[in-house]
Amino acid sequence: MMFFEGSEKKVEAVLKPGQASLRQLGRPFWAKMVAQANAEILSSIHNDDCDAYLLSESSLFVWDDRFLMLTCGTTTLVHAVTEFLQHVSQDALAMLTYQRKNEYQAQLQKSSFADDLASLAPHLSGNAWRLGHLDGHHNYIFHLDRPYCPEPNDATGELLMYHIKGEDADYLRSEGQNIEQIRQMMAWQQLLPQFQFDDFLFQPFGYSMNGICGDRYVTMHITPQEDSSYVSFESNLPSEQLTPVLNHLLKVLQPQSYDLISFNMACALSHATGVQAIDHAEQALPIGYQMAFQHFLLPSSQVRSADPL
Amino acid sequence: MMFFEGSEKKVEAVLKPGQASLRQLGRPFWAKMVAQANAEILSSIHNDDCDAYLLSESSLFVWDDRFLMLTCGTTTLVHAVTEFLQHVSQDALAMLTYQRKNEYQAQLQKSSFADDLASLAPHLSGNAWRLGHLDGHHNYIFHLDRPYCPEPNDATGELLMYHIKGEDADYLRSEGQNIEQIRQMMAWQQLLPQFQFDDFLFQPFGYSMNGICGDRYVTMHITPQEDSSYVSFESNLPSEQLTPVLNHLLKVLQPQSYDLISFNMACALSHATGVQAIDHAEQALPIGYQMAFQHFLLPSSQVRSADPL
Repeated sequence: MMFFEGSEKKVEAVLKPGQASLRQLGRPFWAKMVAQANAEILSSIHNDDCDAYLLSESSLFVWDDRFLMLTCGTTTLVHAVTEFLQHVSQDALAMLTYQRKNEYQAQLQKSSFADDLASLAPHLSGNAWRLGHLDGHHNYIFHLDRPYCPEPNDATGELLMYHIKGEDADYLRSEGQNIEQIRQMMAWQQLLPQFQFDDFLFQPFGYSMNGICGDRYVTMHITPQEDSSYVSFESNLPSEQLTPVLNHLLKVLQPQSYDLISFNMACALSHATGVQAIDHAEQALPIGYQMAFQHFLLPSSQVRSADPL
Repeated sequence: MMFFEGSEKKVEAVLKPGQASLRQLGRPFWAKMVAQANAEILSSIHNDDCDAYLLSESSLFVWDDRFLMLTCGTTTLVHAVTEFLQHVSQDALAMLTYQRKNEYQAQLQKSSFADDLASLAPHLSGNAWRLGHLDGHHNYIFHLDRPYCPEPNDATGELLMYHIKGEDADYLRSEGQNIEQIRQMMAWQQLLPQFQFDDFLFQPFGYSMNGICGDRYVTMHITPQEDSSYVSFESNLPSEQLTPVLNHLLKVLQPQSYDLISFNMACALSHATGVQAIDHAEQALPIGYQMAFQHFLLPSSQVRSADPL
């Protein structure tokens, strides 16, 4: 069995006004930070607002006053955070969040969320929360305990999809797939015509994409392995532009279950027939974000057989 | 936060005909085996067929030709199995199964199911399966790859309940609870009037019970901690006697989700209004057992807040 868990981890940090630009730290700085997470830079795209780095199964976006890094697999994102804090004083931070989703093979991870909190504790003082039932899907977040007031257009939506099914999912698992067909399947050009894209097809399969347009970003990571398939999509687009993209992904990928995580955003998804809303947690974080976690699931309609190990 | 995960593990072994009685190995032998799992014998009851040992958050049943050991928490049941195999040749075994449920804090466990398979591999040759989706509740089983034909009355039902709610669940979490009130709540005497019981109330809370009647057993373990509550009940009673007991437990404990695992048994549970059948896997194991895994869940009807860590 080929196992790869898209056990996503995410850090986002915003500097206080008046600090030197993070973009001017330059690619060598970010490459070194990325290496701390056991990832590497594969390619990058740039516009006036943002540098977007596509990493091995991960992404990094850098703006003048903020950065966002997402990693999958058994990466050690927390080491990238502590590396960053060696160079940028925590006094320069206006906001920092560190997020991790629940994992299904936690024993394969190099650290747990609790371990990560212990790694951050000497550097940062903050609070941590879990949204969602412990025995079901859930999401952990840590944030700096410093008052913060997000910009009005600072909203984020994350869609985490599990057990993708159907023809397109089968294609994503097939040999000899080509990147152009994946782009067409996802309809990037039609759905996000103003965006500049950078994407990568892994061997034997797996796909990552970054897109930027002004200070807006989209990013997607696909790990299609049959037994553990996982697709994540995340963006800071406004809800009315993001919702059609998320609905397209649900339609194409037909996930058996999915989580919608949002910050200061309401997304009304179009669910397939039979999909049930299983869990919904919301929390007004004391850093100015209303965080929501929703878990949806299509109950199995058929008796399935066991999976041999 | 007080965390205790009832991460259940189970081993069952049957000897070939003509072997010396397992009961005659005596308590010191079993105490030593139990110690290998980091558990200890608290008390025991006996009848003509069976010795039932109540362990620290675990249970051990020994018959002449078979034994069954169940452990919770971070016990290392696999070490008890390898200890057993030092004394009883694997050639003497007619059947052996080793089961583990999915864990939510797998990083707190001393081993994973894969690690346990690696520990068993030098001693036993077998097959392993997972029943249930990887990203939801699921159950792992390993079995010896040796043809086996269970007796007609050899059937087992396991009910694993999560997030218990309501007055009785609150009582089980309260200080100053007494064991008599728990017995009445569970209605052991009314539901199983022929049984002999042995039970134990842990401090500050937590309850374990063994019951035997001839060669039939029941066993229950409650870890009521609010954030991670878990109750397991298991028996080899026939379905028509077991089903009313399971239905009583569902009514009293009101679990938010539960798994029903059965071997050569069909149990038609009475589900509360709104409970959804989420997943159902069945497998004819090549050792003569039809194994079924069903996961049920009551979707959260309200938006909940986050849990602070």
